[in-house]
Amino acid sequence: MKIENSLLLTDLYELTMMQGYYYHKMEGMASFEFFVRKLPKNRNFLVFAGLEQLLNFVESAHFEKEEIEWLAQQNFRIDFLNYLENFRFSGDIYAMQEGTIFFPFEPVLRVTAPIAQAQLLESRLMNIIHYQTLIASKAIRFALVAPEKNLVEFGLRRAHGAEATIFSARASFIAGFSGTSNVLAGKLFEIPILGTMAHSFIQAHDVEEQSFFDYAIANPQNVTLLIDTYDTERAAKLVVKLAPKLKEKGISIEAVRLDSGDLELLSKRVRSILDTGGLKETKIFASGNLDEYKLEALVKSGAPINGFGIGTSLDTSSDAPYLDCVYKLQEYEGKPRRKRSTGKATWPGTKQVFRYFNKNGSMQKDLIGLATESYPAVTLLHPVMRNGKRIYPKESLIEIQKRTKDNLARLPFEIKTLEPAKTTYPVEFSQPLISLRDQLEREELQPE
Amino acid sequence: MKIENSLLLTDLYELTMMQGYYYHKMEGMASFEFFVRKLPKNRNFLVFAGLEQLLNFVESAHFEKEEIEWLAQQNFRIDFLNYLENFRFSGDIYAMQEGTIFFPFEPVLRVTAPIAQAQLLESRLMNIIHYQTLIASKAIRFALVAPEKNLVEFGLRRAHGAEATIFSARASFIAGFSGTSNVLAGKLFEIPILGTMAHSFIQAHDVEEQSFFDYAIANPQNVTLLIDTYDTERAAKLVVKLAPKLKEKGISIEAVRLDSGDLELLSKRVRSILDTGGLKETKIFASGNLDEYKLEALVKSGAPINGFGIGTSLDTSSDAPYLDCVYKLQEYEGKPRRKRSTGKATWPGTKQVFRYFNKNGSMQKDLIGLATESYPAVTLLHPVMRNGKRIYPKESLIEIQKRTKDNLARLPFEIKTLEPAKTTYPVEFSQPLISLRDQLEREELQPE
Repeated sequence: MKIENSLLLTDLYELTMMQGYYYHKMEGMASFEFFVRKLPKNRNFLVFAGLEQLLNFVESAHFEKEEIEWLAQQNFRIDFLNYLENFRFSGDIYAMQEGTIFFPFEPVLRVTAPIAQAQLLESRLMNIIHYQTLIASKAIRFALVAPEKNLVEFGLRRAHGAEATIFSARASFIAGFSGTSNVLAGKLFEIPILGTMAHSFIQAHDVEEQSFFDYAIANPQNVTLLIDTYDTERAAKLVVKLAPKLKEKGISIEAVRLDSGDLELLSKRVRSILDTGGLKETKIFASGNLDEYKLEALVKSGAPINGFGIGTSLDTSSDAPYLDCVYKLQEYEGKPRRKRSTGKATWPGTKQVFRYFNKNGSMQKDLIGLATESYPAVTLLHPVMRNGKRIYPKESLIEIQKRTKDNLARLPFEIKTLEPAKTTYPVEFSQPLISLRDQLEREELQPE
Repeated sequence: MKIENSLLLTDLYELTMMQGYYYHKMEGMASFEFFVRKLPKNRNFLVFAGLEQLLNFVESAHFEKEEIEWLAQQNFRIDFLNYLENFRFSGDIYAMQEGTIFFPFEPVLRVTAPIAQAQLLESRLMNIIHYQTLIASKAIRFALVAPEKNLVEFGLRRAHGAEATIFSARASFIAGFSGTSNVLAGKLFEIPILGTMAHSFIQAHDVEEQSFFDYAIANPQNVTLLIDTYDTERAAKLVVKLAPKLKEKGISIEAVRLDSGDLELLSKRVRSILDTGGLKETKIFASGNLDEYKLEALVKSGAPINGFGIGTSLDTSSDAPYLDCVYKLQEYEGKPRRKRSTGKATWPGTKQVFRYFNKNGSMQKDLIGLATESYPAVTLLHPVMRNGKRIYPKESLIEIQKRTKDNLARLPFEIKTLEPAKTTYPVEFSQPLISLRDQLEREELQPE
């Protein structure tokens, strides 16, 4: 069993609640919505990602026999386990398209199904959507400050476990990256894979120049040489010396990589050494604990760097490693429901997000209304699964990347900043939604 | 193919460098060491975890036929791919035992193998060890301030992808937690699983009391009722009213859960309502965006809370979502190697960590020396794999948890704080190691 497809990848309470619904024959239709309650401090907007993996998961979700056998030892009722053995999701899902920019309180996804089914999905649904959305929303900040540069996802080693490595490669590509160093992500998602060389290869040779030569001979198709192991400028000169020898063999030096030190200063000196040495076509690639602020500073400084490897800060979304997201019951048996716990109250009912645009195509405002309302605006939630069958086609990552770019282009410039913007994008609630909330509040105040 | 076992879960450069070693017949033995360069701001020490999963990975690591076929389309040489097809790790590994407390620059793991093999392991080895060590080092902070409380890992939904959810459950158990809400982690690692109920179950009922009753009837073995959906104190009184009806059916109310509001105040009021109502045995469990500082404050306040669910802050290690860890070549063909890139220089040679204890059993100091040295101290690196075969037995998580507790008990009290300690634990370098570094530095300064 693959852990990422196991329905046991859930919180225990989803199963005990399911047993409660089952035992008491609560089979009514429920609608749950996924939304973010609050932006992290340094985010002015978020980018939705992860729908493809979610749909794959929901469509194939079932319990294996040996999982049921194991559950039988954990205090579950036999009749309930028989029900689980035949579990298949049979409900509907509405969602935003991947690459859509969104804001707090906007439902990005709605699940409607018999309550036990919709409940069971909760934990893993959040796990899938949360992380990819987190990373797409982080990655777009790099794309924002370096739209002309090649950005490559490099974070495999410090991403949180196996699945995070491939999800971060996918989500950052959606947000505008050009590729990843992660070979498996390249295979699974058809993302361009890019690589250079590590210090160990150079250190394993007694002479640096020999290591460059050996690497190029063995990997003639894409030669990127790492030049900061001992002395960056000296190594740049070695590269110049080496180039004619490789040219004789039909090999060109694609790029050099800097991984430490003052990248602005070094890139300028190295550029000059390469240019003087006749290697005007050889690119400079940089890496080394870069975040979006360092990237912005380098780009603004005019450092002649063509591409960047971005690792840990991206894959862990290090300045904001989680989103305050939830999956909440909004309606059961046709009745709107809400939670009113201190500081955590929710908007009741099933909802739709309406987006208004200015004449020039830029985003004007969003309106959160009830799903039954209609306005002369673009609706952001679309049906993607009906009766347990996927109806939304699989999109290529290139298509999704284009959508993100288009969304970003339409975003008001005031909030396209790394720093918290002084204005927030207008997100309003419709009058019928406000009335519904007020009505429920009045009802709750009545003594039982 | 399970993604977590795929050898394609690697950075592209590991494969291109391997191709370099292969092409040039560089088959000498290499030693790489994994260590942390620097503590995150709020950590005074770290806890090693993840060895079990690493050994499983290394022992079974191989390429599937279809992976080789895919690589054949990516510019790799046929003879190299034939070699990969038969790839099996045949080297040695030394490591600290899981649950061992360690400090920067101390190698926690050493791989010795033909260089191509040791190189290939790098990315996934770091990915496995980094995350579990990160989480164990975070989780122990909760255990430190609440040693008498039941701590339960609750972070599945916001952990970064599937594997992070099970790794965080495992690593936090090692560090002193009592269980997890993650059902799959319970199954895979035999960790006690614990669960309560969510707000949705209550909201799906028209009357709160009915939802409590229904849940208890369906799950009579372990009844924990969530009481903050509408009004916490009112719900506590409902629980008291309900208890006799459940008792008639032989069901007792194990606990109530608070998930919002002022937990200190509410727990005191709820405790009093339960006690007055004859429910002295019913425990109080709390959750809701808790970090170790809030936990410490609650414990110090004397809040009558028996257990805590800890989620996002733990699973993302939110205040320090990564460790500055590396895997570096230390020796090749018997010669010590070092990297001297600006700000990233390493200590050469294969090393051992020697730990000295005071007469009372507390830790006195650590000494990092060459692997060939010997001192009247406890050595922390042990052989765990030889010639590709695991020689270290599988340990139960309970054993590892005991080791962590023992380590924590021996740690100087000055650094057992949530805040950065004023003193650092003494970690020294042996004279032979210092001499070796100085000798290599002098050699590097010679003109070639």
